[in-house]
Amino acid sequence: MSILVVGSVAFDSVETPFGKVEEVLGGSGTYFSTSAGFFTEVRLVAVVGEDFPQRHLDFLGSRNVDLGGLMRAPGKTFRWKGRYGYDLNEAHTLETQLNVFEQFQPVIPAAWRKAEYLFLANIHPELQMEVLRSVDTPRVVACDTMNFWIEKERPALLELLPKVDILIINEGETRQLGQEPNIIKAARAVLALGPKTLIVKRGEYGVLMFHQHSVFTAPAYPLEEVFDPTGAGDTFAGGFMGYLASTHNVTEGGIRQAIIFGNIMASFAVEDFSLERMKRLDYGEIEGRFRKYRLLTEFQGLD
Amino acid sequence: MSILVVGSVAFDSVETPFGKVEEVLGGSGTYFSTSAGFFTEVRLVAVVGEDFPQRHLDFLGSRNVDLGGLMRAPGKTFRWKGRYGYDLNEAHTLETQLNVFEQFQPVIPAAWRKAEYLFLANIHPELQMEVLRSVDTPRVVACDTMNFWIEKERPALLELLPKVDILIINEGETRQLGQEPNIIKAARAVLALGPKTLIVKRGEYGVLMFHQHSVFTAPAYPLEEVFDPTGAGDTFAGGFMGYLASTHNVTEGGIRQAIIFGNIMASFAVEDFSLERMKRLDYGEIEGRFRKYRLLTEFQGLD
Repeated sequence: MSILVVGSVAFDSVETPFGKVEEVLGGSGTYFSTSAGFFTEVRLVAVVGEDFPQRHLDFLGSRNVDLGGLMRAPGKTFRWKGRYGYDLNEAHTLETQLNVFEQFQPVIPAAWRKAEYLFLANIHPELQMEVLRSVDTPRVVACDTMNFWIEKERPALLELLPKVDILIINEGETRQLGQEPNIIKAARAVLALGPKTLIVKRGEYGVLMFHQHSVFTAPAYPLEEVFDPTGAGDTFAGGFMGYLASTHNVTEGGIRQAIIFGNIMASFAVEDFSLERMKRLDYGEIEGRFRKYRLLTEFQGLD
Repeated sequence: MSILVVGSVAFDSVETPFGKVEEVLGGSGTYFSTSAGFFTEVRLVAVVGEDFPQRHLDFLGSRNVDLGGLMRAPGKTFRWKGRYGYDLNEAHTLETQLNVFEQFQPVIPAAWRKAEYLFLANIHPELQMEVLRSVDTPRVVACDTMNFWIEKERPALLELLPKVDILIINEGETRQLGQEPNIIKAARAVLALGPKTLIVKRGEYGVLMFHQHSVFTAPAYPLEEVFDPTGAGDTFAGGFMGYLASTHNVTEGGIRQAIIFGNIMASFAVEDFSLERMKRLDYGEIEGRFRKYRLLTEFQGLD
């Protein structure tokens, strides 16, 4: 099954303790699509400006990403500038230039309206709702959001959440949305707002998944070299949704396995700046980490 | 197999967002022994002052803890005062009164020198070394330490570590001791200092265990009510060593299972102030959480 994703395509400028890059390929839609493209076909709805180079489009096109919903608008492409300290779990935004993204009105090509898997990356919750209205009845709707929308657009978000199957947000966002400091209580409060499943991203501590009656924990794949965490969350979501759509298994077990693949994809993304590691990645490496991953949490029948 | 432990017995005054207690029973030796006592006999070497009430000794005595190595010295018992904010992962020490603990010279009763399992709680590394010298060849030596000793007594610590089988410290201490910000690299650096196994405690994020060639991750048991994290680390160590000594299985699999029991014991300890939850705990509850724990990390054969 293919996945429809609506998100950003951007230029990132990033500084970490290990290096610095300027105006490299980034954006939630880009990271998500590249990651999901390892598992299934991805249909990307996004906008770029006149300054966006063909080679980036060629790269995405070569990675199982259908660009039939990518618009080119007059003006400049979305730009984000951020910095990380040694605590790589937290980005410090230095500058955001929305540019063409400011007027972004996602248009879903008619042929894509029967999408079965839909991922709404972090954009205004009203736009997320519009996208949701313009597709038929997808089997799985997953979405992301951020502190800004939780604070400023809470009513729009609360209208969206009951229509979402899987909400994928980070730990701070979970506490903010659930209005509880304890993460387990916060997660319960978020589930009460509508989503059937909540996935909480905790950076180097991995992922928590909540259903009404169960909790699943999946550690991050342990890495000695974390170079740049930018895009890790969207790469996780891409691996997760990509695996889910490729297996078409949305049982508890299927969702748990998809989370592991999400974690593994994210573990590659952070090993280099921008999409560089994803460009060098092959499926054999993904399988290799999956095999090793099993031993990370195994505590029975080992001796 | 019984366990020999050398640590502190103290009065704690603790403030959390959920309440406040004054001069309640605490100390690393106390938490460790009570926790380990659920699994095996514990022999506690510690010191208290003249002000230490008999009822606390009666409690420990009723919990499989042999007090034949507990000295009563002239003066006051060790006191610690601390506060936690909503981020319950970090304690802010308000006051430390060493009192009788300042002159503490652990004396191991002759009959206890053949200890097979030894836990050196967080005391001066030179004292830890003295204890180690005064026992015969224990099968498993585990030890804890803290930022203060890592900074001020590094040479003494570096002398001790090659004689330690299992070092049990927290995440910040691992980074400080390994002199690396990346936790995986830091753990490798710590292993290079001598211990065969390193267990890294990460509060609500659970535990990482490192051997030369393997990594194991064990999430914290998810709790909606964390009341007071004081003693969680020593309760973990007690559950871990207690289970290990009771099964006498120190294979990779045995150590992993013991870590799970450590996590489960810690999950009870934080549900109330001081040792209150441990006083109400029975073994059936421990087994109940162990059964639920398996589902936390399971991602295969579920569907």
